[in-house]
Amino acid sequence: MAKFKRGKHSFILQDKPVITHWASIAGKKEGAGPLGQCFDVVSQDSYFGQQTWEQGEKKLQQMALETLITKARLHKYDIDVVYSGDLLNQCIGSSFSVCNQNIPHLGLYGACSTMAESLLLASMTVAGGFADKAVAMTSSHFASSERQYRFPLGYGGQRTPTAQWTVTGSGAALVCAQGKGPKIESCTIGTVRELGIKDANNMGAAMAPAALDTIKAHMEDLNAPPEDFDLIVTGDLGQVGKELLLELARREGLNLGGKLTDCGTMVFDNTRQDVHAGGSGCGCSAITLCGHLLNKLNTGKLQRILFCGTGALLSPTSTQQGLPIPGVCHAVSIICGGN
Amino acid sequence: MAKFKRGKHSFILQDKPVITHWASIAGKKEGAGPLGQCFDVVSQDSYFGQQTWEQGEKKLQQMALETLITKARLHKYDIDVVYSGDLLNQCIGSSFSVCNQNIPHLGLYGACSTMAESLLLASMTVAGGFADKAVAMTSSHFASSERQYRFPLGYGGQRTPTAQWTVTGSGAALVCAQGKGPKIESCTIGTVRELGIKDANNMGAAMAPAALDTIKAHMEDLNAPPEDFDLIVTGDLGQVGKELLLELARREGLNLGGKLTDCGTMVFDNTRQDVHAGGSGCGCSAITLCGHLLNKLNTGKLQRILFCGTGALLSPTSTQQGLPIPGVCHAVSIICGGN
Repeated sequence: MAKFKRGKHSFILQDKPVITHWASIAGKKEGAGPLGQCFDVVSQDSYFGQQTWEQGEKKLQQMALETLITKARLHKYDIDVVYSGDLLNQCIGSSFSVCNQNIPHLGLYGACSTMAESLLLASMTVAGGFADKAVAMTSSHFASSERQYRFPLGYGGQRTPTAQWTVTGSGAALVCAQGKGPKIESCTIGTVRELGIKDANNMGAAMAPAALDTIKAHMEDLNAPPEDFDLIVTGDLGQVGKELLLELARREGLNLGGKLTDCGTMVFDNTRQDVHAGGSGCGCSAITLCGHLLNKLNTGKLQRILFCGTGALLSPTSTQQGLPIPGVCHAVSIICGGN
Repeated sequence: MAKFKRGKHSFILQDKPVITHWASIAGKKEGAGPLGQCFDVVSQDSYFGQQTWEQGEKKLQQMALETLITKARLHKYDIDVVYSGDLLNQCIGSSFSVCNQNIPHLGLYGACSTMAESLLLASMTVAGGFADKAVAMTSSHFASSERQYRFPLGYGGQRTPTAQWTVTGSGAALVCAQGKGPKIESCTIGTVRELGIKDANNMGAAMAPAALDTIKAHMEDLNAPPEDFDLIVTGDLGQVGKELLLELARREGLNLGGKLTDCGTMVFDNTRQDVHAGGSGCGCSAITLCGHLLNKLNTGKLQRILFCGTGALLSPTSTQQGLPIPGVCHAVSIICGGN
């Protein structure tokens, strides 16, 4: 039995890696939301100074990495590896952001679960002694996502009540073997799951079953009931997906009621920002973690959270071929760093 | 300094993970090539019994995983984690292949470097004590790739001399903490690199600079000159990219001459198979490794190889926006397992 494996899906980190620094870059709408004050940079320019939205998303990741490195008082050559991915086909937000930078890079595709997936891999890499400084990073952009996954924005398509608003933002976290800050104590690797949802405007419903599987697996593998956490934070289920998750959990006798929250319901204020079912996208959980939650964990206002990155592996090709939308969820348990 | 990190880009595996089993599934054209006898399954049906090429690619990965599990006399529940990715948008070959299977899955995007990337991560996971049995897997399909990246096949577009033929195939390798078989001794994480190539029909040129960077990094970090290897095997540079790599290496005083080979030049016989510059795609290095090279390493006909997965991070979107094609390369040093 592998030394740190626990149960079927999880592993513990005996030498807990430390998230020593974190950085978040947000768009204008996100900056005007309830968490607006938490972000390192809020840009009023949806192109982030670039010619296209896709290159804007590349710039978002570059800004996140630069801000992270500056906050950590490092040079880019001090970074041993960057784990990153995004929603764009071939993950061009990520690959162009580190192109010709001489930074070792491992590309991921986990859709909106990428912040959790990259954190999980970064902590494994550092705890295993393969790197000292690993970066977990991701991004999403409302305009580049909408035109790739749904309709060109110029088309002015009407949004359904279950639709979510892709967050324009990027978050990056520096995971180190030593230092001060919130610590990662265990992780759960998710499984791909679908229950027949085919509606590209109802991502929350597509992801809720995977979220339940992973939360249950974490709790069983590590003997950690909901009471052990201040918050169980899903990535971007939104209002619809969150309610479905609560309902699915109730049916299995699991009461998440007082503990569950969702970055998609935190990042926007739906009473004044008209985002329908909430925020979504890799950037949603990334800026909520790297702008808000890690600050709270650092100052002790939160003691322990289960950060559950949720991803809808939505493909326009497979959807047009009549197939459902698989979901995935990876979980990372993060504790207050103490002093 | 992290215990196993060496130099800027590499790490060693002190407890060398073992590739105990491997499996390869190939299409008809690949089965008729020089390595045809090495593959576990050669299918005459380019749809692999599915309705679409994309779902055929999913089936390819399912067949590779099932064959692997059968060869290893395991049940799917014995697998701790599958690392996989492919060339399709949102990696639907990979995500659908493990959907509703209850197998922990971490999705990757490294284009055609995925076989090396997944092996690197699987060996890190096993050597770090986070899993006992990790699978590294990838696939590509000529028909699904051509219509996504270039032209629909029905269009009958003429291929340029530098064009490569995407391999229809899938390879999977089981990486374990213990057992018999070839062993992974060290890995090098690549950096994303581009030197201005914009031609989607010249992937070899786009990848050659990244391949050189990674091979050089491996040799410097681990003090391992070309003479230390029986073969230095790149993934899918093809004839054009291989010659460019030799030329780039020569300019930097590195003589790879007698050691360098490329899966893209091994998998097809261009004198009778009309593939222009050679094979390409994630499946190219995957079936060459999991069908041919690992057999040779297992029987001692090869003692040590440097397996260098090369990926062209080609995106039709960024190419249409006038941007170059970044490349990446990850390297895994594999030795004969002994007895």
